[in-house]
Amino acid sequence: MARIFNFGAGPAVMPQAVLRKAQEELVDWHGSGMSVMEMSHRGKEFLDIAARAEASLRTLMGIPDTYKVLFLQGGASLQFAMVPINLLRGKTRADYLHTGEWSKKAIAEARRFGEVNVVASGEASGFTDIPAVSDWRLDPQAAYLHYTPNETIGGVEFPFIPDAGAVPLVADMSSTILSRPVDVSRFGLIYAGAQKNIGPSGLTVVIVREDLVGQALPGMPIMLDYRIHADNESMYNTPPTFPIYMAGLVFDWLKEQGGLAGMARINERKARLLYDAIEGSGGFYICPVAKACRSWMNVPFTLKDAGLDEAFLKESKAAGLLQLKGHRSVGGMRASLYNAMPEEGVAALVDFMRDFARRRG
Amino acid sequence: MARIFNFGAGPAVMPQAVLRKAQEELVDWHGSGMSVMEMSHRGKEFLDIAARAEASLRTLMGIPDTYKVLFLQGGASLQFAMVPINLLRGKTRADYLHTGEWSKKAIAEARRFGEVNVVASGEASGFTDIPAVSDWRLDPQAAYLHYTPNETIGGVEFPFIPDAGAVPLVADMSSTILSRPVDVSRFGLIYAGAQKNIGPSGLTVVIVREDLVGQALPGMPIMLDYRIHADNESMYNTPPTFPIYMAGLVFDWLKEQGGLAGMARINERKARLLYDAIEGSGGFYICPVAKACRSWMNVPFTLKDAGLDEAFLKESKAAGLLQLKGHRSVGGMRASLYNAMPEEGVAALVDFMRDFARRRG
Repeated sequence: MARIFNFGAGPAVMPQAVLRKAQEELVDWHGSGMSVMEMSHRGKEFLDIAARAEASLRTLMGIPDTYKVLFLQGGASLQFAMVPINLLRGKTRADYLHTGEWSKKAIAEARRFGEVNVVASGEASGFTDIPAVSDWRLDPQAAYLHYTPNETIGGVEFPFIPDAGAVPLVADMSSTILSRPVDVSRFGLIYAGAQKNIGPSGLTVVIVREDLVGQALPGMPIMLDYRIHADNESMYNTPPTFPIYMAGLVFDWLKEQGGLAGMARINERKARLLYDAIEGSGGFYICPVAKACRSWMNVPFTLKDAGLDEAFLKESKAAGLLQLKGHRSVGGMRASLYNAMPEEGVAALVDFMRDFARRRG
Repeated sequence: MARIFNFGAGPAVMPQAVLRKAQEELVDWHGSGMSVMEMSHRGKEFLDIAARAEASLRTLMGIPDTYKVLFLQGGASLQFAMVPINLLRGKTRADYLHTGEWSKKAIAEARRFGEVNVVASGEASGFTDIPAVSDWRLDPQAAYLHYTPNETIGGVEFPFIPDAGAVPLVADMSSTILSRPVDVSRFGLIYAGAQKNIGPSGLTVVIVREDLVGQALPGMPIMLDYRIHADNESMYNTPPTFPIYMAGLVFDWLKEQGGLAGMARINERKARLLYDAIEGSGGFYICPVAKACRSWMNVPFTLKDAGLDEAFLKESKAAGLLQLKGHRSVGGMRASLYNAMPEEGVAALVDFMRDFARRRG
């Protein structure tokens, strides 16, 4: 098979070096005679794998000691419930910023457990922009402020961290985590499904300030209480061991890329290359997102002539550029440029786009 | 590394042929240029992998068309909550059989959502026996009857399927599923964590009769409603794609072993070999479990002289017989003989045990 580049939004491309190492170790991990998949989660070998993965993540993100790192299951979709269940803490209201499809889902789920104050909505712009901070109606009594730093579908990314004052800030970082440095101490809780920048699907990472843990709503499943997982080092029940191992390999790889600062330089270059190609296409390609909040990770764009969409997808696929079809709610194309997408992949995409525009423009 | 045999209770040994195939395909699945871990869960390739896994499971277990097969996350521990949340269906009481540590956990969790009637308890026997059916206090008005066909820790396995009359029967089959044929039509719901007989951890299989789906308790997370998963073919959110792929490989391997009937013959032979060695040790080894309900999958045994436990564990490990230490709540040893444990592994264990008894007896 010739080299292909996978622009899917997730589960997504993984670093080739990580996949090759996993392949090498798959049947017999470090001479143990066992696959990682065969190890007891309470055995010395796996406990060491999990501890190293956590330590690497702490180093990469600079996570303060006052935060717990949890390796859970259920994806961001289960966190949409676990956040209000755990963080309402006797309050009745939470603040949510509505900037696209994923914050919409988070809001709908939170309404099952409390009152949601939509601080601001990007609806007027068709979710192509972040509402001006001056228009936000923050509630100082809110239990927390939830936002989606990067909307995977709309391609809208916050270029700043919202100031929530004394209210704990909660972020669904599924599609932006590890793409650039972030000051964790400004957050009460960060969560992310693994299948974009962390590892394979089936793993959810939660980073939570310790003082926010321990006041879950009564009458809920014990598995949805952060405390039970925090108290048991994510081993209250059997964790998703292989995805945790893969995440650890990805973290090691990130260190080799210069950590998150190094990764950010690469990601910015990749994003600029693609946005410049769109802007320089004379209107053949259009990115609907406001320039100030264009995502480094997910780049939606349309063709001026939607009648060419099918040809674009067919020919790009033939050129080894896969999964460029836009989300059904947006249409057009979407190129996801996660950490593991190499710069030559973006260069190949941009070359193809220029050639396609020349031939069909 | 010399051949080792892993008797751990889970995550546990997997078939070598399955691991080798996964290794071969890890970086480039079937010439797609992608790892299975990199595939979109909504893409053609993965949809085909998931559909084939489900079809294989249906064939192996003879699952009627009136049952849904769900691939979920969260393990049996989350099912302990999802079962009452979904199956109480306006009723207030459910029946539970208490036969060991895992049914105890299921009972504790169910009490968060309704009234639990403990039909019978094995406590008087120290959970080494199944209470006589004549002593069961079944409630004909119960929403369902829950039991644990095989207690992973205690090593107690039901040699029969309880008769619940018109009340739906629910089984936590985590450590017995696929070890022998079972008449699925006698159950309302079967669930199992994958990490014993199905595949790697992080996947939960639920088999549920369609008419029991759709009446979840209000005020619960949408992710805990079987309906949302049933209506979306387990793709409401991103499923644990790699574990599902591995499960599919295990199902293919099981077909090659002659399906569940073939597997049952092998499992019975393996269990008999070990139990006979214990019985024939002149009291050097003792199995506390009543003969009629000794598990084929998890065999707990103690040494007459507990002072030899440490030497037994050290020497067995040196002989390549791993993870024989019993659960802390039972002590002594436990050998798990899941499907993927080859007969020569049990033979090696039995040889070691005889030799150890001869030297230390």
